[in-house]
Amino acid sequence: MKNITTFSELVNHLAEQGMRKNVAVVWAADESTQHAVAQAITDGFITATFVGCEKQLREQAFLLPLLDHITFVDAPTPDDAAAIAVGLVREKKADILMKGLINTDNLLRAILNKETGILPRGNVLTHITAADIPTYDRLLLFTDPAVIPFPTHEQRIKQVEYLATMCRKMGIDEPRIALNHCSEKANEKHFPYTVGYQQIIGMAHEGAFGRCIVDGPLDVKTSCCAASLRTKGIDSPIEGQANAIVFPNIEAGNAFYKTITLFAGAQTAGLLQGPTAPVVVSSRSDSTQSKYYSLAVAAMCS
Amino acid sequence: MKNITTFSELVNHLAEQGMRKNVAVVWAADESTQHAVAQAITDGFITATFVGCEKQLREQAFLLPLLDHITFVDAPTPDDAAAIAVGLVREKKADILMKGLINTDNLLRAILNKETGILPRGNVLTHITAADIPTYDRLLLFTDPAVIPFPTHEQRIKQVEYLATMCRKMGIDEPRIALNHCSEKANEKHFPYTVGYQQIIGMAHEGAFGRCIVDGPLDVKTSCCAASLRTKGIDSPIEGQANAIVFPNIEAGNAFYKTITLFAGAQTAGLLQGPTAPVVVSSRSDSTQSKYYSLAVAAMCS
Repeated sequence: MKNITTFSELVNHLAEQGMRKNVAVVWAADESTQHAVAQAITDGFITATFVGCEKQLREQAFLLPLLDHITFVDAPTPDDAAAIAVGLVREKKADILMKGLINTDNLLRAILNKETGILPRGNVLTHITAADIPTYDRLLLFTDPAVIPFPTHEQRIKQVEYLATMCRKMGIDEPRIALNHCSEKANEKHFPYTVGYQQIIGMAHEGAFGRCIVDGPLDVKTSCCAASLRTKGIDSPIEGQANAIVFPNIEAGNAFYKTITLFAGAQTAGLLQGPTAPVVVSSRSDSTQSKYYSLAVAAMCS
Repeated sequence: MKNITTFSELVNHLAEQGMRKNVAVVWAADESTQHAVAQAITDGFITATFVGCEKQLREQAFLLPLLDHITFVDAPTPDDAAAIAVGLVREKKADILMKGLINTDNLLRAILNKETGILPRGNVLTHITAADIPTYDRLLLFTDPAVIPFPTHEQRIKQVEYLATMCRKMGIDEPRIALNHCSEKANEKHFPYTVGYQQIIGMAHEGAFGRCIVDGPLDVKTSCCAASLRTKGIDSPIEGQANAIVFPNIEAGNAFYKTITLFAGAQTAGLLQGPTAPVVVSSRSDSTQSKYYSLAVAAMCS
């Protein structure tokens, strides 16, 4: 696979592949979800199963030319739509799950349902964002800006595993994953999780995450800037070229997310990982473009 | 005072004022400290007392034309220089303290010394950064990316107090201070400090911090972007125009700091607040320009 460094390249790659993944969309009553799905169908990498809202969707002129790639499934309420869409994923009739106009908590309840849900035992539900930052020379994945407040050591191991897998599916043969911290020294007293970092690095050496390079603690700058690494006199196999960052907590992950989008012109795509299929859970405030890119990343990673 | 929105305007304002503050520089053996001080002298807002390194400094050609504004004080070692420079601040012979080539911990020991130090009882030592972000329409101050790992409620109150005072000294009559969190809802269970935010906002209403607006929890985007605030349907008296942000912990503060400098082209100036004079403690990896701007912010705030 050729090297994908931007969302445009990602979308072009998907179009060239000519393979469509099926997304089950839960209660697509909002136009930005409808437009994002329509664009992904038009660009050739998605077919959609809209669960609920059929009447409303059939009235949208921009969907009419795409009906060959659309299926409708009836659902009386958003909660019913969530249960049905999750069922489609469980029966492998859908490759991707997408949230429309439904409360995230309600969708999560359907995903996490012990009898009928799609989170395998031992998996962890976590949020991964892929970012296309104009001032960085590659796509940057990071976790977790939105779901797990303070990941435990075991949850962090899963986060590294998901990032390594996602990066490889996106064409990075040997992903470089930075374990983030405000300094480059492990500190047992104030930041006990940084001691856990050493163990995760050891696991990576032993091949626990497949082919990848894991290092840390590193801050954002020493993770993504070779010059900063040299100035600080630090040796890291990531060499300032991180493909992914694991943040220690949701406050740091969220500050990073909001800062690159607000001040650095980044485009982002967000996914839940852990369930048997990637879940697109953009919030109302996300742009249509962000939802569209989320579908593209999900199509690469499903 | 006119509205200062960039570091250039800040420096111009200082030059127009024509008032010099005296900085005591501890062991200025590194060229970037020397150049930053020389530039601030040239631009008319600083006189320098170099403590230690006289012989080496007298050999620097670029300092020769500035000797009218330079005093030398002898010191055999960096630690002695720290103690002497702190003494100059205590005796009000220096308005600003600046770190040269000395370990930060060693300088802090001199500052924190109970007999001879300069941190009044009841004050808190915390790091405040001022940032000039090209994509933001004003200077943005924030705390704490470097010193206090997990501020207590009492420490956070002091941080708000210091930010309010610094902003006003920098010409903002009614500073808008955002208490940062990853969401806009206080959450007692996972994020107990967000409950403390409500109390700090109450204190601000009662005038505890002088004239200012304090609000939160707000994320980086709803703090600094009116459109994001509207999209989310949130009412905040900060109106997406924060002058300052208090981050909940060092991980979030540091991620913000590193991200704006690496990906958003921000210039930064860093200061310790709490001691009787501002302390410029740039690290080796900071640029000469960053040290120069730190002196400018310190000159405004001392």
